[in-house]
Amino acid sequence: MLGTAVFAITGVLAVTRRGLDVFGALVLGIVTALGGGTVRDLIVSVQPFWIDDVNYVWVASAGALMAFWIGSQFRNAHRALLYLDAIGAALFAMTAANKVLLLGMSGPVAVAMGVLTGIGGGLIRDVLAGRPTLLMSREIYATPILLGCIAFVLLQTVALSVPYAAGVGFAIIFGLRALAINRHLEMPAWLTHRDRSPH
Amino acid sequence: MLGTAVFAITGVLAVTRRGLDVFGALVLGIVTALGGGTVRDLIVSVQPFWIDDVNYVWVASAGALMAFWIGSQFRNAHRALLYLDAIGAALFAMTAANKVLLLGMSGPVAVAMGVLTGIGGGLIRDVLAGRPTLLMSREIYATPILLGCIAFVLLQTVALSVPYAAGVGFAIIFGLRALAINRHLEMPAWLTHRDRSPH
Amino acid sequence: MLGTAVFAITGVLAVTRRGLDVFGALVLGIVTALGGGTVRDLIVSVQPFWIDDVNYVWVASAGALMAFWIGSQFRNAHRALLYLDAIGAALFAMTAANKVLLLGMSGPVAVAMGVLTGIGGGLIRDVLAGRPTLLMSREIYATPILLGCIAFVLLQTVALSVPYAAGVGFAIIFGLRALAINRHLEMPAWLTHRDRSPH
Repeated sequence: MLGTAVFAITGVLAVTRRGLDVFGALVLGIVTALGGGTVRDLIVSVQPFWIDDVNYVWVASAGALMAFWIGSQFRNAHRALLYLDAIGAALFAMTAANKVLLLGMSGPVAVAMGVLTGIGGGLIRDVLAGRPTLLMSREIYATPILLGCIAFVLLQTVALSVPYAAGVGFAIIFGLRALAINRHLEMPAWLTHRDRSPH
Repeated sequence: MLGTAVFAITGVLAVTRRGLDVFGALVLGIVTALGGGTVRDLIVSVQPFWIDDVNYVWVASAGALMAFWIGSQFRNAHRALLYLDAIGAALFAMTAANKVLLLGMSGPVAVAMGVLTGIGGGLIRDVLAGRPTLLMSREIYATPILLGCIAFVLLQTVALSVPYAAGVGFAIIFGLRALAINRHLEMPAWLTHRDRSPH
Repeated sequence: MLGTAVFAITGVLAVTRRGLDVFGALVLGIVTALGGGTVRDLIVSVQPFWIDDVNYVWVASAGALMAFWIGSQFRNAHRALLYLDAIGAALFAMTAANKVLLLGMSGPVAVAMGVLTGIGGGLIRDVLAGRPTLLMSREIYATPILLGCIAFVLLQTVALSVPYAAGVGFAIIFGLRALAINRHLEMPAWLTHRDRSPH
């Protein structure tokens, strides 16, 4: 729930610009907060999580409207929001990976669905808002989520308790992301395409 | 069916430009007409409506091809098409919201799915065609659909008959949209982001 | 599997540019290779094919990483890759159309799902990467797939054996596509929008 609210708020703040109306903000906030988990649930053939607990929709709507009307206040707390967003992404990814494992699916599927839940909502928002997606930037956002999900699944497999494995995964995601926010880190050059030629 | 044909026609007319070929027009027309309802059906876990009644695919294809080849004729009837499009959106939204309630799902889910069915096809088309989506414009398109769906669900809940509730919802959507088309209304400033700073 | 690997490779090569990092390449490669089939499986209500056979994910990942790191080598074999891509698209389309018919669905649905499987992954990749999709270009890519799927379904219906029908469909797709690659063919003008006015 906390993750949902934070994602809705940061989702709207990310796209706010002159001309965005309240309906657009509402949709983009809800999509950012619920989109990744919805696609995950469709892929693993379960009912989207918010259909039976509509509170997620209310929380996402409230976050989106709040960000729309008093967004300028938030901006003073820009950095705090980035950290909250990192917590949200880590919670989303761990919950998703665990849910998929409990459905009896394999480790790689759990990792894929953890990453999808962590970044899917933001991807859909960026596409609907006509912004470049995070896949095309060097910001370190998704790689910590991938590493944290892999750690969670591996630790699970060697029979460690779920809370412990989830704790380690969470720490990896939040830790790396916080480091990236704090030091303005970008992906190292050897992990980035260096080709100069335009295609 | 009428809504399907109109959505396919307006969908193709919206993106027609030098270089679009007949296959692109066909896909974009079908997506505009069937896309919103397909995503809705996936989310509420029923088979997409056009799989058992392929006539929807034929109608959408015919509308798309017609718009592609004799699109310039339509353009003289531009305003008439906008009104037809408003009727299509209102029909789609009422049908969808009612379908979701009949599945035993809650009111907020019905509203969300009504709006999704009304605007989803257009959103996917704009994304595939590389155009800004209606979420980023001040055109009054989606807000009437949202209000109409809320009215429908509320009137349903206070035990009014479905046809009556749907009639009111339809009237709200078509009325507000017709007003917006006729007077070239945009969202009022207080419902639009005023921040001057680019992010 | 071959199709999966080739799609992952060509998917990454298509979007490689300065600034793309290894995670983005991985996601875009996987999406190109598995995206079309995943959406198809969701629409026909079966579990996505890679959930029970994770090898598809490994093959797609390997192809994407290979293209990312040694992509410049591939570029010397650019034309060979285009032909391989045509083979992949033809295999994907025939497999998908046949799968849908075996599920007892109608011919038009099989054609639609064959085309979706052939071009869907590339469409999602282009949208996530912020590139114009093939729907907006005059490149002859999707039309051969459409014609091949129609031929496959028609030949099936007149009771020809599946392998024969699939062979003819494959030949149509690969043949037309190879011709387009070889002669740099574009869609003929009468199948392309000629209207000069911008909308």
